[in-house]
Amino acid sequence: MSETKKLSTEAYKGVRDFYPEDEAIQQYLFSTMSRAVERFGYARYDASVLEPSELYKSKGAENEELVNEQTYTFIDRGDREVTLRPEMTPTVARMVAARRRELSFPLRWYSIPNVFRYERPQRGRLREHWQLNVDLFGSSSIEADVEVIALAHAILKEFGATEKDFEIRIGSRTFLNELTARHRLSEDAAKSLHTLLDRRAKMMIGEFEVALKEYGISLGEINAGDVPNDVRMILDHLAQLGITNVRFDPSIIRGFSYYTGVVFEVFDIDPQNNRSLFGGGRYDNLLSLFSDDLVPAVGFGMGDVTLRDFLEVRGLLPAYTPPAKAYLAIAGSDNGSISDSIALGAMQLADELRATGINVAIDFGDRKLGDQIKAADKQHIPFVIVVGANELASGTFTVKELATGEERTMSRGDLIEGLK
Amino acid sequence: MSETKKLSTEAYKGVRDFYPEDEAIQQYLFSTMSRAVERFGYARYDASVLEPSELYKSKGAENEELVNEQTYTFIDRGDREVTLRPEMTPTVARMVAARRRELSFPLRWYSIPNVFRYERPQRGRLREHWQLNVDLFGSSSIEADVEVIALAHAILKEFGATEKDFEIRIGSRTFLNELTARHRLSEDAAKSLHTLLDRRAKMMIGEFEVALKEYGISLGEINAGDVPNDVRMILDHLAQLGITNVRFDPSIIRGFSYYTGVVFEVFDIDPQNNRSLFGGGRYDNLLSLFSDDLVPAVGFGMGDVTLRDFLEVRGLLPAYTPPAKAYLAIAGSDNGSISDSIALGAMQLADELRATGINVAIDFGDRKLGDQIKAADKQHIPFVIVVGANELASGTFTVKELATGEERTMSRGDLIEGLK
Repeated sequence: MSETKKLSTEAYKGVRDFYPEDEAIQQYLFSTMSRAVERFGYARYDASVLEPSELYKSKGAENEELVNEQTYTFIDRGDREVTLRPEMTPTVARMVAARRRELSFPLRWYSIPNVFRYERPQRGRLREHWQLNVDLFGSSSIEADVEVIALAHAILKEFGATEKDFEIRIGSRTFLNELTARHRLSEDAAKSLHTLLDRRAKMMIGEFEVALKEYGISLGEINAGDVPNDVRMILDHLAQLGITNVRFDPSIIRGFSYYTGVVFEVFDIDPQNNRSLFGGGRYDNLLSLFSDDLVPAVGFGMGDVTLRDFLEVRGLLPAYTPPAKAYLAIAGSDNGSISDSIALGAMQLADELRATGINVAIDFGDRKLGDQIKAADKQHIPFVIVVGANELASGTFTVKELATGEERTMSRGDLIEGLK
Repeated sequence: MSETKKLSTEAYKGVRDFYPEDEAIQQYLFSTMSRAVERFGYARYDASVLEPSELYKSKGAENEELVNEQTYTFIDRGDREVTLRPEMTPTVARMVAARRRELSFPLRWYSIPNVFRYERPQRGRLREHWQLNVDLFGSSSIEADVEVIALAHAILKEFGATEKDFEIRIGSRTFLNELTARHRLSEDAAKSLHTLLDRRAKMMIGEFEVALKEYGISLGEINAGDVPNDVRMILDHLAQLGITNVRFDPSIIRGFSYYTGVVFEVFDIDPQNNRSLFGGGRYDNLLSLFSDDLVPAVGFGMGDVTLRDFLEVRGLLPAYTPPAKAYLAIAGSDNGSISDSIALGAMQLADELRATGINVAIDFGDRKLGDQIKAADKQHIPFVIVVGANELASGTFTVKELATGEERTMSRGDLIEGLK
């Protein structure tokens, strides 16, 4: 077929292609997250990216902008309104509500879904990203809050970050409620104060102070506010678990309307890059969308893009390791054509090595040996084994280690030990 | 907030929720697939589920029905036409074409994407499923076809299937071309013959024979057709690699118009469930949509739903293992209330065990000990450790193995060895 006009090779705007070296990092992020949360007994769940749109419509006025302007929502061919999930929390609430009578609480669940927002692409804010979601359902005790915050801490440690790299800041909806009561704020004023506090990190101090005054609140009330009881207990417990890079910050509010108690955010404390990495909190009313049963919950979400930046800046991402440990290069006849028997011999040798747990790729040898070795090097494969008629007949092979250029001659039997 | 009307907890029509026991099977399928293909040196890639719709429009008339009636296609808020990928091959072709000058060939890539079709839900044909995609780019030699078929075989073996469970049937577009030339079929007739052959497995023999006669072709020509040269060589090579559950079947054609050479399908040969499990073949012109460079390719796709059924019927799916190995149950005071210090002591003990690689979940103890043990049992967690004030003071704990009911008393130090 000869097409006249060629198609573009670009991905859809605002999403990423993951070539093997990028995908290896994604898999590293996901497997490290999984290991850390499974150590605390969290079990993995998943769901489709497609959800009925109504799932996102009932969460209160704050989310209207999100549903109307920032989601991928369309009508399917069966006239159903469908949304590509913008976050996982409504999905997990739906799933827990559906089996609330059968499930065993406290329920520890996690997932690493991709989520979608129709936003203008910018650094750290793509239209699709992956997000670890961790939730503990069924306990309203303070220990549940402590566990979830300790787990957030444990994940960053698992990635090699130290307490000097990040800080956990804890806020409380209780504190906000007291503040609005003390100043007799109307419901609307409380909401707009809430929004102001949430935006604080993006404002200049002076600008923030002026904005606060409009509510009759001084900067001191926010900064030096008494630590609420629930936050104090959590800080005490965390300290006894050895977690000390954590403090009360009354301006931590979180943007979602469903939080009901303690909330927290984890900050990158590099002075060059001081920003919120991720966060979460307690939301005890979430299941009320589906049922009159109350199931208290506490959890957090952790995005791949911000995390990857955080780790990259600190040199905490692993170097790329290709799947193949050895590459079989084919030494052909003088004229460059190879006989079937050499290729077949190489495939048999590869199978033998694979059976012992060594991952092996084969070059099919329709080019010079040097070019085959270059191909292995370009893929970062550590060892090349040359396979030709002589090698197959004698059972003796040359193994080249590409990092050092060192060559060794090995019998078929020694290859397995030598490569391991 | 008190909602008046409750939301439905049902998932969107035709997609699946994966509760932990189901998700564990998905993860088992994905990790086993990955292990098998990485052993052959295939590297993992990924991309977004969102693709520009034009990617699916240029593949020829056969795909019009797919694009127009069977995809999730919508216009985004920026007036772009977007499609949820119905298959991964156009995406991988796009990605390879974009970097064809930098990539090193032969290129071995795999992915395990979810793909979407707007179909009426039925057994094995959901609107969303996951599919291993394996591709070898850059080699037109017969060894590439052999490797990919051997790899399909290796994956099923990795899952514990034996050669008695499945059979690989190889067809060839060359054979089809010869057949249409011999009978001087028009292009349209060749296409409809193609469709007929593809539907064969779903027809009665007599019905198929009658339909063939319309093209002047006898059943004998299809059944006893000479084995084409390329297929014969592949069968020979596979036999020398020890793969014998494979045969030529001229009716194997595959539905996609992009195949150009040898094609194959893997069949479940249980007489109760004789059907195609998955398949693939050679498509040497795929990149021509994007570029005039020719990059030969051979590959296959393997869906999770069919595979899961195949393994389930044979008892080849693993039993569920929860992430936690031990569950800390809290023995409280007489009135059922627990002191903070016991819960904190349990959290400290859990951290100690986790540091040695033992996954531990904690019950927060706001109920009877018996109910806590029941909760562990329901989650299939093998061991329960009882933690109370006495235990923390004495450093001696009772460990209960739930499968046997056996109880042992262990010191804090012995716990680690005992649980490992």
